[in-house]
Amino acid sequence: MSVTAPLGFRAAGVPAGLKSGGARDIALVVNDGPSRAAAGVFTRNRVKAAPVLWSEQVLTGGRVRAVVLNSGGANACTGPAGFQDTHATAEKVAALLDDSAGEIAVCSTGLIGERLPMEALLAGVDEAAGSLSRDGGLAAADAIRTTDTVTKIAFRRGTGYMVGGMAKGAGMLAPAMATMLSVITTDADVTADELDRVLRRAVAVTFDRLDTDGCMSTNDTVLLLASGAAGVEPDAGEFEKRVTEVCADLARQLLVDAEGATKAIAIEVVGAAHEEDAVKVGRAVARSNLLKCAIHGEDPNWGRVLSAVGTTDAVFEPDRLNVAVNGIWVCRAGAAGDDRSKVDLRPRDVTITIDLSAGTRSATVHTTDLTADYVHENSAYST
Amino acid sequence: MSVTAPLGFRAAGVPAGLKSGGARDIALVVNDGPSRAAAGVFTRNRVKAAPVLWSEQVLTGGRVRAVVLNSGGANACTGPAGFQDTHATAEKVAALLDDSAGEIAVCSTGLIGERLPMEALLAGVDEAAGSLSRDGGLAAADAIRTTDTVTKIAFRRGTGYMVGGMAKGAGMLAPAMATMLSVITTDADVTADELDRVLRRAVAVTFDRLDTDGCMSTNDTVLLLASGAAGVEPDAGEFEKRVTEVCADLARQLLVDAEGATKAIAIEVVGAAHEEDAVKVGRAVARSNLLKCAIHGEDPNWGRVLSAVGTTDAVFEPDRLNVAVNGIWVCRAGAAGDDRSKVDLRPRDVTITIDLSAGTRSATVHTTDLTADYVHENSAYST
Repeated sequence: MSVTAPLGFRAAGVPAGLKSGGARDIALVVNDGPSRAAAGVFTRNRVKAAPVLWSEQVLTGGRVRAVVLNSGGANACTGPAGFQDTHATAEKVAALLDDSAGEIAVCSTGLIGERLPMEALLAGVDEAAGSLSRDGGLAAADAIRTTDTVTKIAFRRGTGYMVGGMAKGAGMLAPAMATMLSVITTDADVTADELDRVLRRAVAVTFDRLDTDGCMSTNDTVLLLASGAAGVEPDAGEFEKRVTEVCADLARQLLVDAEGATKAIAIEVVGAAHEEDAVKVGRAVARSNLLKCAIHGEDPNWGRVLSAVGTTDAVFEPDRLNVAVNGIWVCRAGAAGDDRSKVDLRPRDVTITIDLSAGTRSATVHTTDLTADYVHENSAYST
Repeated sequence: MSVTAPLGFRAAGVPAGLKSGGARDIALVVNDGPSRAAAGVFTRNRVKAAPVLWSEQVLTGGRVRAVVLNSGGANACTGPAGFQDTHATAEKVAALLDDSAGEIAVCSTGLIGERLPMEALLAGVDEAAGSLSRDGGLAAADAIRTTDTVTKIAFRRGTGYMVGGMAKGAGMLAPAMATMLSVITTDADVTADELDRVLRRAVAVTFDRLDTDGCMSTNDTVLLLASGAAGVEPDAGEFEKRVTEVCADLARQLLVDAEGATKAIAIEVVGAAHEEDAVKVGRAVARSNLLKCAIHGEDPNWGRVLSAVGTTDAVFEPDRLNVAVNGIWVCRAGAAGDDRSKVDLRPRDVTITIDLSAGTRSATVHTTDLTADYVHENSAYST
């Protein structure tokens, strides 16, 4: 289903030789309208890949006719020549669709610092345009994989419309190879402003709350395109709910596919004075290598939770902190609580609950354990 | 030499059964004066161990008669009872020295969240007081080791005075087991205010620029004690230089002894608009798990350097960044530079130079690589 689940979209995924072994590496998603309203959320990294710089410009217009994506190269840190490569890619798609390059978004993923093989890439774009179809969503999702072991797609049905999506990213565990790309489509009729509002809110509580190694990619891009082909103006609340569900579904798939991870860890922060505090604490704990190693070793080492919480400026008193690991309150009032030997850390899913005892707000941040396999995969990537 | 290199200090290190295997685990350092001026720098973690809370109070008076240190337990996250244990330890030392507990500093290191075995500890303090000697510095340094594979001591000679020191810490790689303790002594005659000024400046450019896993301990403590026994009021500049050298020497020993590390990485940031920017960038790069894995794999993956730099708010333009790895400028003007195959990453010492092209300030942050051994050591610590 993927991005072609909603009406008005065609897609394709083809091999162009950017990845070795003949795997698909060029994806094209085309919005046939009648609307082409669109919104995008991009990495906050100040070192942005050429396609991010390009697509940010495109999205200021609030209209996207097509998105062309490639794996096999991030086109990041490639200087003015790399930007020209992105521009040329957009121009190529525009020519093939007899449209304006200013409404063609570009996404790239792969290794940083190397130019793309443009001849192969443009030939692949040609082929992708020729094989666009209403059931090309799965091939497109396949073409954006890097170290992803599975294709990531999701869809939800609204009242008279659909929301579909695809994503790539092996759990944000390798963001320097350009972590996460996602294209979400809908056939509902929604203005660009409303798409922007909905997408920002959805991303903030889904993709933004994945934090598997604290690194931030140069290429992260999430796009939301509306064709309006279903002829339905959706209820604003329902539409936001469906888009958020698709983002959450895709984010969960990223987490589960995290490179080298053996545990999916939910850091659930409750009793916060502000939601922002809860997110901040969740993120600090999610970034503690020591805790992530402990969970890998199935050790409910709550001291490492507290020492991470203590690095934040969230509202809390150290002697009022409570921590549960998989439901056992091993830390109460900032000191040892229930018997830690009762904690069962064998399941893949682990929940660490942190009660700040400072209010009523909460947030959950998702991360993974730190493993020798993570080290191995990321020691050997570019060589 | 250690803390007893300067005149006026006695020390001891004895086994009290806090660590298994009969290793020394209680250290005592006594200042016999005539001065007992002192200063301390403590962890900025808001979750502070009981001995940190206690010693911070002691140091507000600017006077320390003795420091008692234990390994085998951090006494962190132990609640009011843990604080009473620290208080009782200080009272015990005070009684043995016929002095005031208000001038007895306490440091602990080991696992978070467990009470100390007070009976054994107090018996050990008794024994330590009985074996204090002018050449006890090495035994004291030995007694504060946790996973440290070597004893860490340093000293420097000033004009008519000495500065000596000891430290523990396996490279800040295990800060949740209470990373770093250090006691530095001098027989120069220096006021508490001046000690405080000198120590803060010295720590800021040495211990504070070690960042091996981004974690922050609940127990970090660096103390500087002056006996005045040499009868010399030192030149302020020279004294600061000597103290900084001792701190740098100890910091280097921590780095080299880092758990599981195979590389000592200096992140040298130059061309910064402000020193603060240089430190910020150095720290961001030092905390990139992806880069640390790459260096472990002897892969000069400069894209991971740039993507870490891009997460900071330092003054720089992405297309003016230059990066050298062991002297080879693999990134120039934000894109690929010299041939990366020329980089020799086989030596243990690795220097990554980042030129922000934004000014004349610089700073160096030290870190290590991320290895499967780090994961193994920290997966199994408390179980």
